[in-house]
Amino acid sequence: MTKRFVFVISDRTGITAEALGHSLLSQFPSVDFKTETLPFVDNELKANKVAEQINQIIKEKGSAPLIFATIVDDDIRKIIADCDAVFFDLFDTFIGPLEAALGIDSSHSVGQSHGVTDLNEYSSRISAVNYSMATDDGVEVDHYQSADIIAIGVSRTGKTPTCLYLSLHYGLFAANYPLIEDDLKSGKLPDSLAAHQDKLFGLTIEPFRLQQIRQERYNRDSYASAKQCQWEVAQAEALYRKYKLPFINTTQMSIEEIGTTIMHKAGLKRKI
Amino acid sequence: MTKRFVFVISDRTGITAEALGHSLLSQFPSVDFKTETLPFVDNELKANKVAEQINQIIKEKGSAPLIFATIVDDDIRKIIADCDAVFFDLFDTFIGPLEAALGIDSSHSVGQSHGVTDLNEYSSRISAVNYSMATDDGVEVDHYQSADIIAIGVSRTGKTPTCLYLSLHYGLFAANYPLIEDDLKSGKLPDSLAAHQDKLFGLTIEPFRLQQIRQERYNRDSYASAKQCQWEVAQAEALYRKYKLPFINTTQMSIEEIGTTIMHKAGLKRKI
Repeated sequence: MTKRFVFVISDRTGITAEALGHSLLSQFPSVDFKTETLPFVDNELKANKVAEQINQIIKEKGSAPLIFATIVDDDIRKIIADCDAVFFDLFDTFIGPLEAALGIDSSHSVGQSHGVTDLNEYSSRISAVNYSMATDDGVEVDHYQSADIIAIGVSRTGKTPTCLYLSLHYGLFAANYPLIEDDLKSGKLPDSLAAHQDKLFGLTIEPFRLQQIRQERYNRDSYASAKQCQWEVAQAEALYRKYKLPFINTTQMSIEEIGTTIMHKAGLKRKI
Repeated sequence: MTKRFVFVISDRTGITAEALGHSLLSQFPSVDFKTETLPFVDNELKANKVAEQINQIIKEKGSAPLIFATIVDDDIRKIIADCDAVFFDLFDTFIGPLEAALGIDSSHSVGQSHGVTDLNEYSSRISAVNYSMATDDGVEVDHYQSADIIAIGVSRTGKTPTCLYLSLHYGLFAANYPLIEDDLKSGKLPDSLAAHQDKLFGLTIEPFRLQQIRQERYNRDSYASAKQCQWEVAQAEALYRKYKLPFINTTQMSIEEIGTTIMHKAGLKRKI
């Protein structure tokens, strides 16, 4: 396997450059990328230190590293661009064409993207996170009237992280409720859920995968047995179908995918 | 204020395109952008429907919308690119140069970026989220030996969402502990924290902002008073200085910035 060094360099957090860099590199599965993120490179002194570090790699390893950068300041960007590396500027590549399309100059100011100045937006976000924490795992069901969405499913289908993701990134009031043995046996939605059917979204998973996940942490006989996992999943899916609830199979999905898929299918819009 | 329609179009979640699009647009503060994200545009049928929707905008509004896209499939991309819009392909722009730099073709496969196949990585992530949930707000202090980082600060400085962000996105075991009146009065770290000084990271905030945040939800006299906020912040900062703890002022920072800044300053690496 080829090995290749990659630097993600940003004048702020590097989150955006990291995500797009990762997305691009995932298209080259035969290369073993060693990625290092260098955030907050926001003055020439820091940029020169980074440039030294990069030029050292070339001397030692022989091959030019890749650089994915989002740097607003022209002078700082030039220092990085002048390194002996393959330079991709994710920001500058588009800002010129964008200025042309809009017919105005960009402000060229750093830290507009992930910064916070709006107290309302900040508070909405925190309220959503607090709501999702407070309503995690079926508690506080009497607060479901405030929910934007209520994720339901058997234990270990990804409900908790999905709800936290939805609240943290989209400001949604996302509650979750675990379908326990009694619910599954009864074949009926519990009263606390039946009153909010329009907000329910089911998660399901391949029984084999569920068993893997459960065994990893709780190797209790019945809870993680193949038979139990198969039964729980079958009962949960029967429940979703009976009440015509939307549901998705999370087996091959990341938390981000589960979250955005739920929003897409439920027609929810971001609140922040 | 100029108004401009923007579409973020992706064959998967659209998270990456949304982030870079937002970052680019934030450089044009005088334009009122109306952004709509259209995720999971993964076949020609869906692409044609999207194209219709976009072409309709031009007829109605007169000005061409902007499109930020990450679409791997050439045929689908062509349908979107042929719309009467200003098209920025965040993915395709770089994939050619990247193929040239690496000397190999890209796999051109959809959904490599945010998908999940690795059970270990998935489990690490869930474990980190569960840890941060369980150790939120100063509970389970006897589990601090497992922590990668322990965020401390007075109430409403952003500890909880920051720790959830660190666990969800970087797989870090991030605990948080609220400095309460007794801790602040004593001028000493509580025993549960004193044993883990190398993991502590302080959050602070401008008293005025703290007061705003507290008043918004809890308009109790003392808790949200200017005097109380000033006193708490001063005591907390004195504590950080006394114990030489690293700390940051979160007043102007988003959760993402607080999280990545802590990682950067504490020298923490992502675990997923």
